[in-house]
Amino acid sequence: MDTLKASDIREILKVTQNPEMISFAGGLPAPELFPRDAIASLAAELLRSRGEVALQYSPTEGYPPLREKIAARMNAIWGTRLSPDEILITTGSQSGLDLTAKLFLDEGDAVLCESPTYLGATMAFNVFRPRWVEIPTDDDGMQPEALERALRSEKRVKLLYTVPNFQNPSGRTWSAERRRRLAALALRYNVPVIEDNPYGELCYDGTTPPCIQTLDEAGLVISLGTFSKIFCPGLRIGWIAAKRRYIDRYVILKQASDLHSSTLDQMLTAAYLEAHDIEKDLTVKRRVYGSRRDAMVEALEREMPEGVRFTRPRGGLFLWVELPATVDSRILLDLCLKRNVAFVPGGAFFPVEERRNTLRLNFSNMPEDRIREGIGRLAECLRGMIGGEEVPVPSGEEKKD
Amino acid sequence: MDTLKASDIREILKVTQNPEMISFAGGLPAPELFPRDAIASLAAELLRSRGEVALQYSPTEGYPPLREKIAARMNAIWGTRLSPDEILITTGSQSGLDLTAKLFLDEGDAVLCESPTYLGATMAFNVFRPRWVEIPTDDDGMQPEALERALRSEKRVKLLYTVPNFQNPSGRTWSAERRRRLAALALRYNVPVIEDNPYGELCYDGTTPPCIQTLDEAGLVISLGTFSKIFCPGLRIGWIAAKRRYIDRYVILKQASDLHSSTLDQMLTAAYLEAHDIEKDLTVKRRVYGSRRDAMVEALEREMPEGVRFTRPRGGLFLWVELPATVDSRILLDLCLKRNVAFVPGGAFFPVEERRNTLRLNFSNMPEDRIREGIGRLAECLRGMIGGEEVPVPSGEEKKD
Repeated sequence: MDTLKASDIREILKVTQNPEMISFAGGLPAPELFPRDAIASLAAELLRSRGEVALQYSPTEGYPPLREKIAARMNAIWGTRLSPDEILITTGSQSGLDLTAKLFLDEGDAVLCESPTYLGATMAFNVFRPRWVEIPTDDDGMQPEALERALRSEKRVKLLYTVPNFQNPSGRTWSAERRRRLAALALRYNVPVIEDNPYGELCYDGTTPPCIQTLDEAGLVISLGTFSKIFCPGLRIGWIAAKRRYIDRYVILKQASDLHSSTLDQMLTAAYLEAHDIEKDLTVKRRVYGSRRDAMVEALEREMPEGVRFTRPRGGLFLWVELPATVDSRILLDLCLKRNVAFVPGGAFFPVEERRNTLRLNFSNMPEDRIREGIGRLAECLRGMIGGEEVPVPSGEEKKD
Repeated sequence: MDTLKASDIREILKVTQNPEMISFAGGLPAPELFPRDAIASLAAELLRSRGEVALQYSPTEGYPPLREKIAARMNAIWGTRLSPDEILITTGSQSGLDLTAKLFLDEGDAVLCESPTYLGATMAFNVFRPRWVEIPTDDDGMQPEALERALRSEKRVKLLYTVPNFQNPSGRTWSAERRRRLAALALRYNVPVIEDNPYGELCYDGTTPPCIQTLDEAGLVISLGTFSKIFCPGLRIGWIAAKRRYIDRYVILKQASDLHSSTLDQMLTAAYLEAHDIEKDLTVKRRVYGSRRDAMVEALEREMPEGVRFTRPRGGLFLWVELPATVDSRILLDLCLKRNVAFVPGGAFFPVEERRNTLRLNFSNMPEDRIREGIGRLAECLRGMIGGEEVPVPSGEEKKD
């Protein structure tokens, strides 16, 4: 696939740099929430007092105080029992995916994933030409019977890949029960699990279910984390949290990939965690993004014609729309771009079989009035495409609530 | 190989964090030459005035003003005719090597390289299990007859990899004539050339011969550059300079590898190039490193027993020593570490056939008195190992010039 698909999305994102554009296409956090003055002061102080370290090569494993803070923070939030040497700093969590592909995958190996799944993972893994197996997925996660069937019948299953919280692209969250069954199945079939968790802390209603790593008795679950959504993505700092037997091999691969992640970015992140209360920042982010999510859901409920379903995510940055089966969201996108509205057509998120009547909407990067305006235009384009309000509703495709 | 070799070196580098250690092992630039106060001011200014950009996701290709500055600077220094869209920013030049492996190599493909060659390239490329072909190399570069023989006879030659200037590990520099012959052979056999050039600007005597890319009529030469040696390695900023047909494919692979390099590091580097005269910094670096090179060469000439050869690099950071054929430099290292002197045994730099009587010395990271002291101790350990000054000199292994 998807060197092509990925570059399509790159083209969409370029168009969205036009300030007139109402973009639901990217996954950008709101830049007005970056603590830029605090970071400016910390950067000046750090470079003046410890510039010889902050500007020099540093260990592949990562800046030790940052590894400590990440382990402590994960243990506090998720109830894991990680030590700092079970944390490897990565250049964003995309590079955690790249290292994962290098560690586990050879051509023809099977990767089990949600349907739809995260495009960044398919891009990273596809460099090694694996065989993707989409597991039927509903609002509670992968369906355990289908998952077990795949584990039993597919050859060379090397990885089970999941974004359990507020998934990109669907916004779905696995139930606690499904997580337990996943951990049990991974143990029974001895398959490593990638728990990709960039959004887990961006929960707007209730609480996020348990981290799969805490349900895993065999040390098979490898968690990927990132500061991109809870702090700043321009500092490329993510991490891998896993047992030492994995971390030791990841370190060798990271050395061959980029030697180490930016020393300055790592030290700045550690200094911010030391001097400021990132949990307080998160309270603000949750409030802002939660309101934007509400604005988008309300606008969709008001504007969307019959035959359209969409998810109501309890957190994260994305919401997933299913159009009537005959509508190709790429054609809808062409219409919308003329009205200065952008989104990502959903086909790219299916590594096996594209479902073109789907699309992904980001709600974190536009203020609420622009969200309402953009959803209004999107609905008009859609109605134009399917011939007004009189849409034939395929059986089982009723508007969901 | 060399997951093992690489981790050996990692262990050596860990030992060298002991401040008592006289380390010739790393490749660290001198941190006292980092312009830390200037960078501190620029960082504070940049984050306060443009923090929403500097802390946000940014294009995979790189920060446009930095791409412009790199193209202009390469054109001025090397006489290339690069446009900004022929520059891709990478997370250090190690990640340029990683992307190169992804773009060109499948299992069993042949890579032609110098003998010895850069360990970082073998590590990055070996993820894809290529077949290495070491071309016999002398002080002027690869021997053209041997290179042509390999190009004619080896199957599936996908890359020709070279560090033409002040090579890591040997310190050797290709002559202008050999560069021309390399470019002509690459054209005749239609093989892409990786011109890995981290040290070309660190020339202490005379001038660096022409960039191979300027001798290439077919657009087959891909140059890798980095700010690690001329500015600061802790900001992970390197670049790939190549024709658009390559850059377009590298961009897709980079997106899958780490999305983009640190926005802050890129903007800081561009701001420094804008506000300060990096050529003046380079004058200082050349003076300091040139004196350290002199101190090490003089100490080696004074201290080394008969039967030892070593290179006299005209630039860069490294110098290469060949011991009598029977001496294993790893055993010498064990003796030296007890005397608090570290270096890298040379075996790891041969992807095909280790030559264990070799070692690499870095001269950039220790002041001159420590260099003299360290070489003195190294020579004592060596004399102890080979039984005093009375070393049997294998034929043809006389101390060189």
